[in-house]
Amino acid sequence: MDTSTLPSWRRCASRDAIEAFLEATRTVPVEQRVAVFDNDGTLWGEKPRYTQLDFFVRELKQAVERDPALGDRPEYRAVLAGDKDALAAFGLVPLVMALAQIHSGITPEEFTRRVQDFFASAEHPDRGVPYRGTRYQPMLELIDELRSRQFQVFVVTGGGAEFVRVISRSFYGVRPEGVVGSQIGYELDRVDGEPRLVRTTELSGDPNEGPAKIASIQRVLGQRPILAAGNSAGDIEMLEYAMATDGPSLALLVDHDDAEREYEYESVAGTLDAAGPVLKVADRQGWTVISMRDDWSTIFADA
Amino acid sequence: MDTSTLPSWRRCASRDAIEAFLEATRTVPVEQRVAVFDNDGTLWGEKPRYTQLDFFVRELKQAVERDPALGDRPEYRAVLAGDKDALAAFGLVPLVMALAQIHSGITPEEFTRRVQDFFASAEHPDRGVPYRGTRYQPMLELIDELRSRQFQVFVVTGGGAEFVRVISRSFYGVRPEGVVGSQIGYELDRVDGEPRLVRTTELSGDPNEGPAKIASIQRVLGQRPILAAGNSAGDIEMLEYAMATDGPSLALLVDHDDAEREYEYESVAGTLDAAGPVLKVADRQGWTVISMRDDWSTIFADA
Repeated sequence: MDTSTLPSWRRCASRDAIEAFLEATRTVPVEQRVAVFDNDGTLWGEKPRYTQLDFFVRELKQAVERDPALGDRPEYRAVLAGDKDALAAFGLVPLVMALAQIHSGITPEEFTRRVQDFFASAEHPDRGVPYRGTRYQPMLELIDELRSRQFQVFVVTGGGAEFVRVISRSFYGVRPEGVVGSQIGYELDRVDGEPRLVRTTELSGDPNEGPAKIASIQRVLGQRPILAAGNSAGDIEMLEYAMATDGPSLALLVDHDDAEREYEYESVAGTLDAAGPVLKVADRQGWTVISMRDDWSTIFADA
Repeated sequence: MDTSTLPSWRRCASRDAIEAFLEATRTVPVEQRVAVFDNDGTLWGEKPRYTQLDFFVRELKQAVERDPALGDRPEYRAVLAGDKDALAAFGLVPLVMALAQIHSGITPEEFTRRVQDFFASAEHPDRGVPYRGTRYQPMLELIDELRSRQFQVFVVTGGGAEFVRVISRSFYGVRPEGVVGSQIGYELDRVDGEPRLVRTTELSGDPNEGPAKIASIQRVLGQRPILAAGNSAGDIEMLEYAMATDGPSLALLVDHDDAEREYEYESVAGTLDAAGPVLKVADRQGWTVISMRDDWSTIFADA
């Protein structure tokens, strides 16, 4: 490959593995060129908090302004006070489900409008840039390169599908139906005889983490990936699944080891108990580990 | 529109309505140009039986050859004997779920291979042509015309998503992730440590008929259609939903009124109790009814 491709990737083992994979897939039938990317911590940053949590907190603050009694609910009080011990005690999924109740009864269109408002004005708490600027430039280059080779690129996130769909086209060039994520339940309602959907307070199915990612890929996309990229224990099964195909395959694991330009932390599952340090799994499985510190000359895309 | 478009559509009210819709949507933002088509009875024939039932019966016969004891199961005995009264007494969904058990424990890849085998050799029981030849030529022309106007076209079927995905690309130019259908459940299994999915005997979620089609469109596609086409009571909510959008919208209902070239019957829901004659609903709602007999100069596409 010439040096104009993947310009933010330094010469390194992960780049070599990507180039070898791209070369090997020249002979793979086009309809089998399927790549799946985790979102939080893989395509964009996930620290100090998941972006969707920032959105929920903002929505909660607005809801409490309208109805102060809401702030007495223990989960909400902990969120508003930033009480880390209390939040940890609730656990991520119960907390997210409590926050999702803010949007109970609204339509998908109204939910989309609120997410659009958030992305139009909110900024990343540490970096002071729009969230668009938390995307990882090298991953965008990889997506472009894959598409130029007729790969289909999908986002398979533990986050809410409807949240990510609002920005997937603009941030990653991925259409709404290409986003697989945790799914809020819907109820059918009628207003003046016309049907509409409204959000419920329950998930439809399991949170999209760990083994659930494999089943959701089959259910929603109906295709098997030969490239999977992730960063946390919640991505382990998806990466194993991509590697278990016949023919060329690639599993990419982003290691957040750049304390200076981003954050340095050990990735664990978003919503499940960590299945052990994910780097050890990667080592055992022979996955391609991407060191953000060493392998990427640029971290962030332009906002 | 010039006469080279929609060549199998005669000059008629349904064609006029389609042309008016296409003209009106010139100014609709591209990302809102979303069209959904029911499959059985809308894109291809559904008589004398759903194609998927023909597939199941063939698979059942092969399974009984391998294990004759299977033939003693009451549902299977009724299927093999063509006992219409017994079949009607079981009901469609329980019957289909009994037949789906033939494929319990196999992988999606193996299921796909069997469906491919079926379409490679089976013929429509009345017409003696491959099932590819049961597609409706005018609907293929409409899909082409929509695509030329930057519409995204999706298939929203009461049938099994995995069954339809095997042929959706070749029959309709719709990629697997563009097919929304009834979903079999999966279990995660490991062979030599590698993860794989196997089919269970239960549906994941509801049969994709009636109100379930609206929720599945939102969940799987994350977009709202402005054109919906169907033919049965199981499509009523989907058509209402498309019409309840702001801006130009179109609901198309195929009326099977051509006893000579196809079949003449009143369409009812596939898996639900019929919500009354669907033509009466269409009339009440102001939908565009397509008379196969009067509006289409050609019915079937080439096999």
